[in-house]
Amino acid sequence: MTFLSTLDYLPHIAFDSVVFGFSKGKLKILLMEYHATGWFALPGGFVKRNETLEEAVKKGLFERTGLHDVYLDQFHTFGSLERFKPEVMKRIFEASNHPIDSDHWLLDRFLSIGYYALIDHEKVTLQPDAISDSIAWYDIDQLPSLILDHDKIVQKALQTLRENLDRKLIGGNLLPDRFTMNELQAVYEAILGEKLRRTSFQRKMLSMDILERHEKLFTGKSHKAPYLYSFKTQ
Amino acid sequence: MTFLSTLDYLPHIAFDSVVFGFSKGKLKILLMEYHATGWFALPGGFVKRNETLEEAVKKGLFERTGLHDVYLDQFHTFGSLERFKPEVMKRIFEASNHPIDSDHWLLDRFLSIGYYALIDHEKVTLQPDAISDSIAWYDIDQLPSLILDHDKIVQKALQTLRENLDRKLIGGNLLPDRFTMNELQAVYEAILGEKLRRTSFQRKMLSMDILERHEKLFTGKSHKAPYLYSFKTQ
Repeated sequence: MTFLSTLDYLPHIAFDSVVFGFSKGKLKILLMEYHATGWFALPGGFVKRNETLEEAVKKGLFERTGLHDVYLDQFHTFGSLERFKPEVMKRIFEASNHPIDSDHWLLDRFLSIGYYALIDHEKVTLQPDAISDSIAWYDIDQLPSLILDHDKIVQKALQTLRENLDRKLIGGNLLPDRFTMNELQAVYEAILGEKLRRTSFQRKMLSMDILERHEKLFTGKSHKAPYLYSFKTQ
Repeated sequence: MTFLSTLDYLPHIAFDSVVFGFSKGKLKILLMEYHATGWFALPGGFVKRNETLEEAVKKGLFERTGLHDVYLDQFHTFGSLERFKPEVMKRIFEASNHPIDSDHWLLDRFLSIGYYALIDHEKVTLQPDAISDSIAWYDIDQLPSLILDHDKIVQKALQTLRENLDRKLIGGNLLPDRFTMNELQAVYEAILGEKLRRTSFQRKMLSMDILERHEKLFTGKSHKAPYLYSFKTQ
């Protein structure tokens, strides 16, 4: 991150990204860790005066994590007063050897616009930026405590994901192009945080008329081979 | 509106409200008109440093329209560069006899957080504020052209309303507590902008298990009297 002048950036406006991935039956999100403080945070950033909000969010995610070409959906803007904690920001910058003055715009109150993304966990190479020391995937069920209101931002992202699960074909983004019904069910269960009945899940998915059925997945035991599906292109 | 010091307000952050009402088969929204310019705009406002975003939006809607106790839902934050048009804001304030200096924070770039509300059109008394000269309901099909990106804000609000129509029981907020199936269908048709088939609409609504059936509406022709319904409390 180049250093952050108020001539370049819009004060009071931040964004935070909740990046979901799915691996080995678990729903995960990306967190940055600041080793010198032991604190964890969502990857986020600020908006330059001459760029759109969307441009800033895409570029910010790339700069902080190394992730390219991620499709992000805006879900909520957070504007409480509890999220205003200048001492937290001051300590993060100090601990990363970028001390800032006490009247610096980064220590003022920010609203944060929340975005979420769904990515194929296996395909990405992660790269932390200059002020955080590491970036990694964390199970949604076992998150460390996060700075400011980032816990709330994660919970709201998860709620949005659950509400949009069918409509936005969210399961598909977390799977390979072709998948079995069992694999799709595992994604649904990880997002909803509960087990589903196999027969009613299958009936519901087929009745929605969103899946295309392909050849069977060859496993050696051909009488048990499951079908492969893809999402219909709309 | 008391006048607007940068000591009191967060620069760069605005909000706009799309208030939907339903009357005589038509979906309508509330617009402010600035007579001296002939311009129309959504009711909006700014966030004070010591109040939450939600508080500002509720208070702002009250101050600009006279509407009390309206339930507002956030739907999107708008951050394009096209929406930055200082000459429009300057002219509005000049024309309302509140001229502002060319370096005033109100002429800088703003992101705007969009909210929508659904209200019972018949129950409200509207009251414009000091800088706009009138406030009135306009048919969604016959809106005048709006300032800045307010046309886009309205379209995005309408899209959100359509996507959430079943899940948020939106129809119910625009109707009296008890309503006939025909009245509910009229709300759906106005929001979706298309005619629906009576039998399949009724079948779908009943299958969702969200309606409670009450006594028939007495009309004098008892063999044709329609049932009254309400939404089940959840």
